[in-house]
Amino acid sequence: MENEPLLMLPGPVPMPERVRAAMTRQAINHRGAEFGAIYADSVRVLKSLFGTENELFVLSGSGTAAMEAAVANFCAKTAVACLENGKFGERLKKIAGRYGTAVPVVSEWGTPLDLDALEQALEEGARAVTLVHNETSAGIKNPAPEIGAIARKHDALFIMDGVTSIGGDLVEADRWGVDIALTGSQKCLAAPAGLSAISVSGRAWEQLAEERPYYLDLLAYRKSAAKKPMETPYTPAVPLYAALREACRIIEEEGLAMRIARHKRMSEAVRTAARAWGLEIFPTLDAVHAYSNTVTALRIPEGISDAALRGGVRELGVIIAGGQDHLKGRIFRIGTMGAVGAPEVLATLAAVERALRSLGFVPEDDGVQAAAEVLG
Amino acid sequence: MENEPLLMLPGPVPMPERVRAAMTRQAINHRGAEFGAIYADSVRVLKSLFGTENELFVLSGSGTAAMEAAVANFCAKTAVACLENGKFGERLKKIAGRYGTAVPVVSEWGTPLDLDALEQALEEGARAVTLVHNETSAGIKNPAPEIGAIARKHDALFIMDGVTSIGGDLVEADRWGVDIALTGSQKCLAAPAGLSAISVSGRAWEQLAEERPYYLDLLAYRKSAAKKPMETPYTPAVPLYAALREACRIIEEEGLAMRIARHKRMSEAVRTAARAWGLEIFPTLDAVHAYSNTVTALRIPEGISDAALRGGVRELGVIIAGGQDHLKGRIFRIGTMGAVGAPEVLATLAAVERALRSLGFVPEDDGVQAAAEVLG
Repeated sequence: MENEPLLMLPGPVPMPERVRAAMTRQAINHRGAEFGAIYADSVRVLKSLFGTENELFVLSGSGTAAMEAAVANFCAKTAVACLENGKFGERLKKIAGRYGTAVPVVSEWGTPLDLDALEQALEEGARAVTLVHNETSAGIKNPAPEIGAIARKHDALFIMDGVTSIGGDLVEADRWGVDIALTGSQKCLAAPAGLSAISVSGRAWEQLAEERPYYLDLLAYRKSAAKKPMETPYTPAVPLYAALREACRIIEEEGLAMRIARHKRMSEAVRTAARAWGLEIFPTLDAVHAYSNTVTALRIPEGISDAALRGGVRELGVIIAGGQDHLKGRIFRIGTMGAVGAPEVLATLAAVERALRSLGFVPEDDGVQAAAEVLG
Repeated sequence: MENEPLLMLPGPVPMPERVRAAMTRQAINHRGAEFGAIYADSVRVLKSLFGTENELFVLSGSGTAAMEAAVANFCAKTAVACLENGKFGERLKKIAGRYGTAVPVVSEWGTPLDLDALEQALEEGARAVTLVHNETSAGIKNPAPEIGAIARKHDALFIMDGVTSIGGDLVEADRWGVDIALTGSQKCLAAPAGLSAISVSGRAWEQLAEERPYYLDLLAYRKSAAKKPMETPYTPAVPLYAALREACRIIEEEGLAMRIARHKRMSEAVRTAARAWGLEIFPTLDAVHAYSNTVTALRIPEGISDAALRGGVRELGVIIAGGQDHLKGRIFRIGTMGAVGAPEVLATLAAVERALRSLGFVPEDDGVQAAAEVLG
């Protein structure tokens, strides 16, 4: 029997065997020392990936839960400048609008953010900024340090979604002036889906909303995390915490700098292949925007259908992503996150080339070999 | 090496091997057919345990998340009569107070609910009722059918927390007039902690709040569940869904009637042992209240410390629960939920008897043998 199909999505990503095995542990009392140690150890490693010394909590909910926790606890009834150049920026805008006033600072998906418009929104009274650091929907990396500087200049709270950067690309939350950073478990950490992590600065705590949600009440998380052994306020998703801890151990063993370099190399390999084939990389950049180091978005060549392209790739055992919302049919996306390396990237590129060729696309050059050179 | 300690708590409970193994599955795309089938199959079985034909969703969050989802989606800005005779009744009251007006209908923990006071609260304008069916903090089973009839008489929405009854005791949500029923994964279902399930009646949908939370927005869950394949609105905790489905299969194999009878027998065995020893069962009952069939709360005999008692039991490899909040030190609790049977119950009772004896308590009679007779 063949292996499972290879998931080269912008999350979920394949999990290492050790991470999956960690979940088979028999149920434990989540108010005991063993769980406390698992939680504390994960927090220690996650803080290094976030680049923060702030308090950090692991929530039993997806990245979307952490997004809502950030907004609901710290930006209720507040005007929030919501930077958007992709789907997840839009999601933060929607959440901000549920709790306060969202001031949209919208660029076309996959194009640079409008930092002048951000300045203006802050001058006109927005008290917080939301940013998606790595916008997987468009394959673009947004300039978090620059935005942090603008937020700080206006004394605004800076909320950064690092769901697809933290653990795969360099994040220095404290140095960049990020007040609240968050990530999900099933992306660069290569842990199972279902958990998220969120860090909170002292400046943010000063602005804690009086009326907070219950399940996502970060003050409740803070109080429980201060206990010995460390706890969560409500029953945590215990097997996922065990898996996350194992994923953190693997990250420590690899070393963060090596891990980031590996992610950079993998995405560079994909872009190199695309250029060799003559495919267009989707996002447009400027001086401060960059291609994502964890997912690559490519334009689908004229006359080729998304379904046929991804179907052809799927026939060779590899699953890649299409575009979302209005980008459906216009782009396809290759995730290079987590535990994967050269074999997975090469297999994926070879399958994409085959699918493109079978649909009539004639590559300019040998993309797979060009990528191999980058990966070697 | 010895086995793990035996968890005889009111959740989490030991998970069958098959349930744990289900979590080792490699990551799958949660927008695909395999995940959709897992979700749909769990929903089918859960509906039978809930006794409902209403829509039912599995949430990536604990029972507390489902409690909040019930209140936030259907009782925002509403006066809610909150029945309370234990800790979880109190929690629903706190949540109701965050979204609307909680009208407390409080009895001392472990004593019968005040149904006259409930009638009065409804006459005075409360538009919804919250009930914890099985209050594990006190070992009492509350009269859901009677409360359903009262709620219906006043045309009030009836929210029932079945976290520690559904899957272990008889629940007939539709027949009892329950509009919203909910449960957690790590209790009678013997699945891992981290998921909850919630059913919603047509009458409840008519009262859906316009302003809803984001992560726990049940309309978003409804829309995604209607897709083919079935989906969740945000990334689900995939391994937990796989484990829950396996737990549901095990429940189907046992048969619900057999499972309920087994739970009843186990708790009856614990109560029988307590009576033989001369220990007092904590809750006080009346014509419509009953002892819990999934957890038994017993008074700690005069002069014995909670820590010493549970410590002695722990030395024999069994973990039982103490009292919560003001019941700490006054009661101890033995959970008999999920996959456990006669061996686990007998071992627990023998360990409890030994711990009691070593602390100077002289049992009147042989509780373990009396329990064995019930279990045989």
